[in-house]
Amino acid sequence: MRIALDAMGTDLAPGPEVAGAIEALAAYGDSELEIILVGDEDVIHAELAKHETVPGGISVHHAPDRVTAEDSPASVVRRKQESSIVVGLRLHKEGHADAFVSAGPTGAVMAASLFTLRPLPGVDRPPVGTLLPTAGELCLLLDAGANIGCKPHHLVQFAHLGSVYVRDAMGRENPRVGLLNIGEEPGKGDELSVAAYELLDAEDGIHFIGNIEGRDIVGGECDVIVCDGFVGNILLKFYESVAGYIVDLLRTELDSVEDRRVDLDHVFRILDYAEYGGAPLLGLAGVSIICHGGSPPKAIHNALAVAARAVRADLVRHSEEDLRLPS
Amino acid sequence: MRIALDAMGTDLAPGPEVAGAIEALAAYGDSELEIILVGDEDVIHAELAKHETVPGGISVHHAPDRVTAEDSPASVVRRKQESSIVVGLRLHKEGHADAFVSAGPTGAVMAASLFTLRPLPGVDRPPVGTLLPTAGELCLLLDAGANIGCKPHHLVQFAHLGSVYVRDAMGRENPRVGLLNIGEEPGKGDELSVAAYELLDAEDGIHFIGNIEGRDIVGGECDVIVCDGFVGNILLKFYESVAGYIVDLLRTELDSVEDRRVDLDHVFRILDYAEYGGAPLLGLAGVSIICHGGSPPKAIHNALAVAARAVRADLVRHSEEDLRLPS
Repeated sequence: MRIALDAMGTDLAPGPEVAGAIEALAAYGDSELEIILVGDEDVIHAELAKHETVPGGISVHHAPDRVTAEDSPASVVRRKQESSIVVGLRLHKEGHADAFVSAGPTGAVMAASLFTLRPLPGVDRPPVGTLLPTAGELCLLLDAGANIGCKPHHLVQFAHLGSVYVRDAMGRENPRVGLLNIGEEPGKGDELSVAAYELLDAEDGIHFIGNIEGRDIVGGECDVIVCDGFVGNILLKFYESVAGYIVDLLRTELDSVEDRRVDLDHVFRILDYAEYGGAPLLGLAGVSIICHGGSPPKAIHNALAVAARAVRADLVRHSEEDLRLPS
Repeated sequence: MRIALDAMGTDLAPGPEVAGAIEALAAYGDSELEIILVGDEDVIHAELAKHETVPGGISVHHAPDRVTAEDSPASVVRRKQESSIVVGLRLHKEGHADAFVSAGPTGAVMAASLFTLRPLPGVDRPPVGTLLPTAGELCLLLDAGANIGCKPHHLVQFAHLGSVYVRDAMGRENPRVGLLNIGEEPGKGDELSVAAYELLDAEDGIHFIGNIEGRDIVGGECDVIVCDGFVGNILLKFYESVAGYIVDLLRTELDSVEDRRVDLDHVFRILDYAEYGGAPLLGLAGVSIICHGGSPPKAIHNALAVAARAVRADLVRHSEEDLRLPS
């Protein structure tokens, strides 16, 4: 299996990308996984030279240009054809790679993925999923910000795409789908929620368990939570920041204690998004995983692992089949 | 100053109400504050008898009926005229009390407050505010769930009402107002956000600082955050639960350590909603504070203190004046 990794995505590129790729290959073995580092070849080779041993599974594909936060996402495919994002996606599209992973600007990766890979038949608005830590298993929230102003049937598509992803990339049978809302009873919420509830409740091929309130998310009652990208994005960013805030509060307390045997690191790990790899862009004719710009090697490694699992499980074909079911 | 306190609101009523009232009077002194306990007088007197000394500032006003979670909020005023909620609000309306505090069912308290106290001139949709702990000061988020499907000018009203509240009840000059959104730049977000941004930016009499993303909330950059009640409610409930989840994670770690000199209690206090008193219902011709059904005495005490500050600062008159400004 070959994964195209945008080597110019993170804020510290290509350091974290190269280190993450080497980590992933050490974990998987060269024979199973090949990683194509996409970006300025001189820069990448210089970074590779800093490592004592470079696994055989790594290759470099030259892409001279780079997308920055200043580029308008919509213009990237047209104006930055030789950027690592567009070149990497093209490698995937043309069959030279089985998946694409990037920590470049989120909007640019999304727009270029949509344009290059194209949505699957039946998908109007490919959603971005994000994994939230809960007291139970990780929960996939979608849409996490790609689609604002969704219609009810979009949330039904998200439910299908999220269910297939959780089955394929996370190995869970019969994923429970919840609708993010402000009350438990049907009929609660805004117009979108009320109409989406009815559609989800009547839909075959998903395991809809009803409305999920904000307070139920961390309980881990759901495998998949669907919502409009507006509330999803606010919630996601809030969660990322509130975890840091609370852990900081505790660190202040703990700093006043001399005996530091408390394993805060374990808590950090549970709450640390880097542990969970990137955000999958779903509903496309390909696998595209988006990472934070601040990703450390560990996060790149995990995103590569997520991409590999999605490819191995045949996520795209399953999504296509699932959407073709009569609904 | 007299505050009517619904003595039948909490799940354990009237225990927490009576204890909270006695605590508040001990803190304020009988001469400054009188508390009218509203509810079944036999039950309240039996509860008062459990306390060694009952301050002179406490009186009891009989209301034989009680609103439960089963009552439809809209029907409470008509069908439960002798309930502690309706009687307490009537005492306020008729001038026998200067404010009303209740931990009864939120929807019922809101509906009865709206009907009895009436919105101030110029207020279409009285919002509920809630205080969020941040790395800086507490931040008032509104609307927290009373109004779903807001129009842009509603968010402008929320900005005014929230600013006056933060000034009057929390003593902060020139409160910074943020619009909850999915990006920092103007033009980001859903239709409501885009239009509300323009109105807020052009509005006199408020200190609008622009869009606030989910990740900025806990940083404490704002004193007031305005949003539709749908996202506000989800965010609020999520925050309440996520704090408990993270602190639980840490407790598990700390339980494995024998030396327990770490002051987790201090962190709990920062994150504990009971510390912050109830949620103010704003934009009414009166002061109505809503508490959680699970409120302990400390939370009732704090809600009474919030009500007292609002009355002393003349919140209602200031809100009225603020809304009368040319806008």
